[in-house]
Amino acid sequence: MFSYVSHLECPKCGLTHPVDQQINLCTCGSPLLVRYHLNDLKKAWQKSSLTTRPATLWRYHELLPVVDEANIVTLGEGMTPLLPTTRLARELGVREMYVKDEGIIPTGSFKARGAAVGVSKAKELGITDIAMPTNGNAGAAWSTYAARAGMRSTIVMPKAAPFLTRGECAMAGANLYLVNGLISDAGKIVGRAVQKHGWFDASTLKEPYRIEGKKTMGLEIAEQLGWKLPDVILYPTGGGVGIIGIYKALRELQELGWVEGPLPRLVAVQSKGCAPIVRAWQEGKRESVFWEHSETVAFGINVPKALGDFLVLEAVYETDGCAIAVDDRDIIMEQKHLASTEGLFICPEGAATVAAARELRKIGWIKESDTIVVLNTGIGIKYPETIDMHVKTLQPDSDLPETYIG
Amino acid sequence: MFSYVSHLECPKCGLTHPVDQQINLCTCGSPLLVRYHLNDLKKAWQKSSLTTRPATLWRYHELLPVVDEANIVTLGEGMTPLLPTTRLARELGVREMYVKDEGIIPTGSFKARGAAVGVSKAKELGITDIAMPTNGNAGAAWSTYAARAGMRSTIVMPKAAPFLTRGECAMAGANLYLVNGLISDAGKIVGRAVQKHGWFDASTLKEPYRIEGKKTMGLEIAEQLGWKLPDVILYPTGGGVGIIGIYKALRELQELGWVEGPLPRLVAVQSKGCAPIVRAWQEGKRESVFWEHSETVAFGINVPKALGDFLVLEAVYETDGCAIAVDDRDIIMEQKHLASTEGLFICPEGAATVAAARELRKIGWIKESDTIVVLNTGIGIKYPETIDMHVKTLQPDSDLPETYIG
Repeated sequence: MFSYVSHLECPKCGLTHPVDQQINLCTCGSPLLVRYHLNDLKKAWQKSSLTTRPATLWRYHELLPVVDEANIVTLGEGMTPLLPTTRLARELGVREMYVKDEGIIPTGSFKARGAAVGVSKAKELGITDIAMPTNGNAGAAWSTYAARAGMRSTIVMPKAAPFLTRGECAMAGANLYLVNGLISDAGKIVGRAVQKHGWFDASTLKEPYRIEGKKTMGLEIAEQLGWKLPDVILYPTGGGVGIIGIYKALRELQELGWVEGPLPRLVAVQSKGCAPIVRAWQEGKRESVFWEHSETVAFGINVPKALGDFLVLEAVYETDGCAIAVDDRDIIMEQKHLASTEGLFICPEGAATVAAARELRKIGWIKESDTIVVLNTGIGIKYPETIDMHVKTLQPDSDLPETYIG
Repeated sequence: MFSYVSHLECPKCGLTHPVDQQINLCTCGSPLLVRYHLNDLKKAWQKSSLTTRPATLWRYHELLPVVDEANIVTLGEGMTPLLPTTRLARELGVREMYVKDEGIIPTGSFKARGAAVGVSKAKELGITDIAMPTNGNAGAAWSTYAARAGMRSTIVMPKAAPFLTRGECAMAGANLYLVNGLISDAGKIVGRAVQKHGWFDASTLKEPYRIEGKKTMGLEIAEQLGWKLPDVILYPTGGGVGIIGIYKALRELQELGWVEGPLPRLVAVQSKGCAPIVRAWQEGKRESVFWEHSETVAFGINVPKALGDFLVLEAVYETDGCAIAVDDRDIIMEQKHLASTEGLFICPEGAATVAAARELRKIGWIKESDTIVVLNTGIGIKYPETIDMHVKTLQPDSDLPETYIG
């Protein structure tokens, strides 16, 4: 069997739904989670079968929701590098530190995973038109995969979203609109439009399958570390699908018996300018409250209230993790630092996890003996506005100035 | 043995040089090629050994020049997707068409391959300072890998080079300069500076090992097609290292007995605004002449005279290939077309190969029965100036306009 998918389950009210119909939220309003025949799969699937499979996220097809291989829409996404950062590990004083580099993926961000699996499943369900609000990268990914699938897409993003992601949507042929507001405003516009036109609403977590794409980050981290889990995983948290997906992956691997021992402590990293999950965690709450006047240079995590906040918080509580907010100045500093010391030009959201790791090590929450993995969710060049650059222009017959020479 | 490297050989005068010393050009002024103990390797190496290796270009370490594995400087480069483009194949009227997508690689361009192998070998040879002229992407890649290796880098690029590549160099901590001129002017400035300061000159083909990195594109295409070579490979040609490398790879695979039959016809694709190789090929020459007042939107192939022109022309002649120049307007058109029909937002240089394939099919040089591979050398978003975009801005309480809705 290509996929061991079973059904959709509501994590709030427990209701189940079939996977062969177009569906968004549960009747109770909650996002839905995909469930698999894990007992059957446990008997049929061996880790060793993976070694000869292509280096894409589809290597885990048994644990993905696409039933017919012919429906796969792919641009070669997945199995991104897990890179040791030895200088940084030494600096922070931890045993081992890795960056999972989601910049090395189609459309340059981890959103490609959700889009690949989401669009493939949409194709399997006969969907021809999708619409979504986005902070930029998700729209870029979904419109690109929609183009690959031959679907139409409508994308609405904040005017302030990273400029280059607009270009990606436009090139992919999306119906693209900007809004003078936040992603929550874009979401309302999309909500009215899908009602009116009968398009499929692919908004974060209103669509049940993107989590499945993103969970492959967790599967890959486990496989790349030889099925020995790290002690801590830090994830930049906006809509939260990444951390929800990684938690789901790790639980599924536990059920399959492929990993042992406690799960990594999952850390939800936010910016001080938009930290609803952090506030909820500090107050011991199970849900977050809308964060007024949110603002951060890490645009992808500017999400004032996430539909899946309760799932993010569950992942944090259940793994003895934590939630932490970092300063935009530290984000910019870590971005520059990582590029020049490790050759990793990561995005601000990724840099936030490095700033968080530094802080958590300082206060002793991360220990010297810990192996930590931080997620870089996209390539740095998508955010040219964070680059501070002073470059000298020479004439063709000039020599390099004597100063500056290192 | 980790590497079967033997020595450096001059393709012009035949002189050989050792691989354990810092060296640039042959004493005769020609670029040098790396040679391997292919007979020994043929006995010791099996294709099947590759199947379980990591999906990076280092899977071919026996055919790479780094002797000690500890010297590898890596960001996870290589094994980029080879993607079927079925709609485009149908449109052009060819049996099979693939895009080798070199956008899915650290720093977003194929230059990462040359930089990974070149910087690794430089580390092995004890080099601590490199300098180079660049049209943008090579500088971005080499300064990034230099940072990863803990080396210092000095980069000089034309003021008109893609803006984002400047940012990559700056973030990597390079000594970065712009020049009011072409890459040839930048090259002269670097030439004087390396003399004066004793830095290693990593200019295209003045450094013998980057070809080895780039040849892995050829190795991967062969492996990804199950060691059955395509009929035609089209490559955007500026400095020419990519096509030289692919030709070298295919010849080495022939010598190893890993591929059979004739080699693919190699096509050097240039822009009509800078076509020295095309002119030389049309005139049956073995070398090119400096192209005056060169200009093209595909900045990476704006190279008026390449040091390795004779090697590019050899690759074309020896494989019954050809050289063809395309119009900048067609490049822009194909770029948009590929993004919206195949979900591949490629760079202008990559789009040039699609325009060339379309033209060569039209005139019958490419046949209906041919399997063709075009190289996309980098991600499209590095060239925001080629995006033609008209986007409407909505207010938070607006609905989508009725027009535009597809």
